[in-house]
Amino acid sequence: MSKPLRLDPDRLFPAGSGVRDIARRLYQNVRELPIISPHGHTDPRWFAENEPFQNPAELLIVPDHYVFRMLYSDGVALADLGVPRADGGPVETDPRAIWRRFAERYFLFRGTPTRMWLDWVFSEVFGLDVRLDAASADLYYDAIDGALKTEAFRPRALFERFGIEVIATTESPTDDLIWHDMIAQSPWTGRVVTAYRPDNVVDPDYEGFADHIGRFGELTGEDTFSWSGYLTAHRKRRADFAARGATSTDHGHASAFTADLSAAEAETLFKKALEGKCSPDEAALFRGHMLTEMARMSLEDGLVMQIHPGAHRNHNAAVFSDFGRDKGADIPTRTGYVSELKPLLDAVGNEPDLTIILFTLDETAYSRELAPLAGHYPALKLGPAWWFHDSPEGMRRFRQQTTETAGFYNTVGFNDDTRAFLSIPARHDVARRMDCGFLAELVADHRLNEEEAAEIAYDLAYRLPKQAYRL
Amino acid sequence: MSKPLRLDPDRLFPAGSGVRDIARRLYQNVRELPIISPHGHTDPRWFAENEPFQNPAELLIVPDHYVFRMLYSDGVALADLGVPRADGGPVETDPRAIWRRFAERYFLFRGTPTRMWLDWVFSEVFGLDVRLDAASADLYYDAIDGALKTEAFRPRALFERFGIEVIATTESPTDDLIWHDMIAQSPWTGRVVTAYRPDNVVDPDYEGFADHIGRFGELTGEDTFSWSGYLTAHRKRRADFAARGATSTDHGHASAFTADLSAAEAETLFKKALEGKCSPDEAALFRGHMLTEMARMSLEDGLVMQIHPGAHRNHNAAVFSDFGRDKGADIPTRTGYVSELKPLLDAVGNEPDLTIILFTLDETAYSRELAPLAGHYPALKLGPAWWFHDSPEGMRRFRQQTTETAGFYNTVGFNDDTRAFLSIPARHDVARRMDCGFLAELVADHRLNEEEAAEIAYDLAYRLPKQAYRL
Amino acid sequence: MSKPLRLDPDRLFPAGSGVRDIARRLYQNVRELPIISPHGHTDPRWFAENEPFQNPAELLIVPDHYVFRMLYSDGVALADLGVPRADGGPVETDPRAIWRRFAERYFLFRGTPTRMWLDWVFSEVFGLDVRLDAASADLYYDAIDGALKTEAFRPRALFERFGIEVIATTESPTDDLIWHDMIAQSPWTGRVVTAYRPDNVVDPDYEGFADHIGRFGELTGEDTFSWSGYLTAHRKRRADFAARGATSTDHGHASAFTADLSAAEAETLFKKALEGKCSPDEAALFRGHMLTEMARMSLEDGLVMQIHPGAHRNHNAAVFSDFGRDKGADIPTRTGYVSELKPLLDAVGNEPDLTIILFTLDETAYSRELAPLAGHYPALKLGPAWWFHDSPEGMRRFRQQTTETAGFYNTVGFNDDTRAFLSIPARHDVARRMDCGFLAELVADHRLNEEEAAEIAYDLAYRLPKQAYRL
Repeated sequence: MSKPLRLDPDRLFPAGSGVRDIARRLYQNVRELPIISPHGHTDPRWFAENEPFQNPAELLIVPDHYVFRMLYSDGVALADLGVPRADGGPVETDPRAIWRRFAERYFLFRGTPTRMWLDWVFSEVFGLDVRLDAASADLYYDAIDGALKTEAFRPRALFERFGIEVIATTESPTDDLIWHDMIAQSPWTGRVVTAYRPDNVVDPDYEGFADHIGRFGELTGEDTFSWSGYLTAHRKRRADFAARGATSTDHGHASAFTADLSAAEAETLFKKALEGKCSPDEAALFRGHMLTEMARMSLEDGLVMQIHPGAHRNHNAAVFSDFGRDKGADIPTRTGYVSELKPLLDAVGNEPDLTIILFTLDETAYSRELAPLAGHYPALKLGPAWWFHDSPEGMRRFRQQTTETAGFYNTVGFNDDTRAFLSIPARHDVARRMDCGFLAELVADHRLNEEEAAEIAYDLAYRLPKQAYRL
Repeated sequence: MSKPLRLDPDRLFPAGSGVRDIARRLYQNVRELPIISPHGHTDPRWFAENEPFQNPAELLIVPDHYVFRMLYSDGVALADLGVPRADGGPVETDPRAIWRRFAERYFLFRGTPTRMWLDWVFSEVFGLDVRLDAASADLYYDAIDGALKTEAFRPRALFERFGIEVIATTESPTDDLIWHDMIAQSPWTGRVVTAYRPDNVVDPDYEGFADHIGRFGELTGEDTFSWSGYLTAHRKRRADFAARGATSTDHGHASAFTADLSAAEAETLFKKALEGKCSPDEAALFRGHMLTEMARMSLEDGLVMQIHPGAHRNHNAAVFSDFGRDKGADIPTRTGYVSELKPLLDAVGNEPDLTIILFTLDETAYSRELAPLAGHYPALKLGPAWWFHDSPEGMRRFRQQTTETAGFYNTVGFNDDTRAFLSIPARHDVARRMDCGFLAELVADHRLNEEEAAEIAYDLAYRLPKQAYRL
Repeated sequence: MSKPLRLDPDRLFPAGSGVRDIARRLYQNVRELPIISPHGHTDPRWFAENEPFQNPAELLIVPDHYVFRMLYSDGVALADLGVPRADGGPVETDPRAIWRRFAERYFLFRGTPTRMWLDWVFSEVFGLDVRLDAASADLYYDAIDGALKTEAFRPRALFERFGIEVIATTESPTDDLIWHDMIAQSPWTGRVVTAYRPDNVVDPDYEGFADHIGRFGELTGEDTFSWSGYLTAHRKRRADFAARGATSTDHGHASAFTADLSAAEAETLFKKALEGKCSPDEAALFRGHMLTEMARMSLEDGLVMQIHPGAHRNHNAAVFSDFGRDKGADIPTRTGYVSELKPLLDAVGNEPDLTIILFTLDETAYSRELAPLAGHYPALKLGPAWWFHDSPEGMRRFRQQTTETAGFYNTVGFNDDTRAFLSIPARHDVARRMDCGFLAELVADHRLNEEEAAEIAYDLAYRLPKQAYRL
């Protein structure tokens, strides 16, 4: 017999009764606010076509690297979870078998945010009321599979049910944006915007860099193999993205290193990059320079710039060769911001009309580097606790380590940063609860007045993300 | 209508009722203890001349980089806050206009220590009982401005009112110390001592290094352009400072790197430094060697040595060029102590009669490097949470991360490290409250007995700073 | 009059009454579980000979670097604590005098785990009921000294009284393991196993490296000066250790750097190492390669591999030269795992049948590197909070910073890692209390159900260390 599943209304609130009462009151005012999701990776095709999701495994396990990385660490082969092989070789095709493997190891997720998000999905989205384990695996599978076949579980219906006011997806400059066009041309009024993520055309080390540059030229009608044509192509595509609602760009570099080269230096380096002749240092220099170029363009066109540095991508050589990118083998690394961002900040850091949002996977930077930088430079804001730190303890550390130096108003509210669509409300709910809990503690020890805390809770949940992302 | 301003007597104490009761009892015994301020940057001229402070803006905003850095990060120009330009160009001269700009953005400081310190100043020093915002800006301005014109708000009166037993200022070896002499010769009995901060004569990269060396020679009658005359000049000036009450030296280097060169090597490097021909590495080597020289002199003359490493000074090129040093653009950097301090420690680290107090802006060093070093070397003690970490959360992390390895008795109590004179009692009060709260938690979970905690609370607030700084 | 000594039954549990009640219930189920001590440094000779311990000072002070490092930091000379000099020169020989020096400075340990462990030993092992201070020093000395002369305080009797199910010691490949043989041949049934710690035959920088390699050859009958003979010798000794119950190896390197060289490269480097001609980088390369060799052998023979990196050993040059190794002067350093472990992980990281347990002295690696690595690679698990972090706050940070990404089931329970035999139950008790407290907080804010928490508490205290270490 599986145990009952029940989401406690006080979950994540601090345990002391006085503090918990304050947290409850603060949360009551923000829990129903619309979701602003300014940064994420849902697939616009879902909202364009509005087809049903396939089955429980394809929806919740196969695409979610948070889920399969933990199962893999316990010794489950990725192929047995249906993760597709790079060479198209055989993998498990029975979604129920995949689901059972997951269900019997669901206890591995105890204490993780994945467990919280999924329990929310099971309970709130699918109405399940027993816990997931080996015994309830089939019950779950059938219930979820059945629901997915109904109208109420199609992407647009869920979007509306979730109270999403606006959601951003992420596309590369070489994406044709057809799904966004299709959404725009449909009668559906859900607001789905894109974001400009140019990694494949600014990183000389990206697989097929020169090919992407070629495609970039085709889409823009510019000679993207010339430095000036290349820059113009960026400007054009940025405008195309803005026309599809984009208000931001996103840059996922290995480090926060920036540079500000002369046009001649940049051009020389660009030629080398096209020829595939950059040394690793030269490739880094080019990427670093392009951050500064992108920042300058943001100053022109008003797109908010996001910098997401610090992951060692594809750390596991065998998994990368067998299964490709994004298979749970990205590992954070030490990430510096002080000397690294200086060239960019010397160029544009004092511009009050520019917004650059910084993220980190290295929490040591919160109090040492990021809060001091954001608490000084007009152009800088801090993005929320990110990725591995998008979690209750991670969010608590973020606020504890940034607030005293940067305040609340140099931060931008929550990003869900996910492709796991069904978990989006759960993630925003965790963020709202943790912020209310943190604020409640400041109220309880008289660092804030409660009515100030209420205002901040609203700002963090709704006003700041809209304002910072210009949504 | 502005909201009421009220400092809760329980502020900063842990929220659980049992723990809070313990914290209250511990605090009751230390709240009225005299203030020992062994490290700070108040202006000795204030106490020498005892002239009234000018106006609210000149007192509380224009000189306080904690305040204007946050306003700057929100897009307010430094000139609009009256911060003087390096070229003497025009800046805001109306103190009331500056004050209003500050007041309408006071909400930006929510959750910061600046907010706590200022609210204390407003409430306790000036008796204000509504909160500062745009609506109360003028009320505040008039009340503070009026008070500053009275005898009770002159520097010496406030010094006495604040219960300061002793305060240290900081001067360079090329300072003539006239204000300290003037204080000594006055009938006033307030104890204001100096501290020896030789950055401008030990750092080859300091602007005008050779000029400072020249001035150093004039003041001491030594040939400071010779290595032996230079060292003798240090000994003489240290004695001069000690004669003005100094018990400590202070060293604000970019890193904790030290060296222990032969006399011949040091002399060669010194010549290069005088000629302005040091490479960056050579300049660092000279600075590092001078830390060891200073430590050896401390062993001779008994001055306590303070090392404050880890700030990237003047990170913002435009702000530095337009407004100069100390404008809120100093950013902490990763700071190592293990291999860095080894040359100095090999030279003098085992001396039980020497006291070297280490500070950090890199909190990762607390548990990894600083507590292990201080928990072993007889000469080492840990300074309190510093600068950006002089805050409730920063102090909590300091105790949580150092106590288990270094204990309480390898720490030295609190430093306010400030030029914001009026905030000094507020800062010491925050430190006493946070230490009592931390101790109360150890009592509540039975790691300490309450009467031990009371003894420690007294030691941290009063006995240890006097003992460690030999005051 | 010394104050009463009393261990509170609620010690270390969170202070709020609801949370404390949960912690109490969880702890009740694990407090009496047998002790699994899979990694430590007790002397097997104690259990082989079962002779009485000498006296209070020789038992509790002279060999315990946690104790004498703190006294040394307060200015007490190591010789005055009876720590033997490297040159055999005179040191204090009166154990009572040593004990008194310790007793009068026992307050220095307030807030440290040493204080908690020792108070447990005083109260629970020796039945003392006043606190240790100068006044009670002799009372303590006489009580402990008297007890040690009785049968009940001999090593085997204490082993049984402590409820130790199995304990691992650590020996080098050149150890003859006679004490383990003697234990095996005795009628006593206590389970004392060894562990394979090959530092002296894999580290070219180890004092007398070539001599150790010679001894390694004598013990194994292999030509250990040839690369293939050297590898075979490892295999043979590993088998010898396994025959004495070893289930693990232990590797105490300065960093986590690994390499995977070709046989020809490794052989060339090995020759250089034998000739004492390795540069520091080459020595590191050899050590790093040997980690990968050891991992491959673990895959063959099933020994669990432990990697303990990150200490700067013997930091204090004078203490090292006068007193030798392990004198409280080992200082942690920044330690990276991401690029450092990649060669080893590329070789064997995806093997689900291999177990590699990672430790750190650099807590910044918990959330940034270690939890992400262990939450992905099948071969990796995380060892508990180690050494300076084997403490209440250290354990709390470990769980707070690893659980959300790696879960509980990529960790392996507690290691006491100590030679302080009498403190072993105290250390395990602290770990159980802290884990129960952490779990209670997750239950209190509804991140876990209480019956799940109870299962995890049992797993962490008993099941996981047995399973992970194959005991």
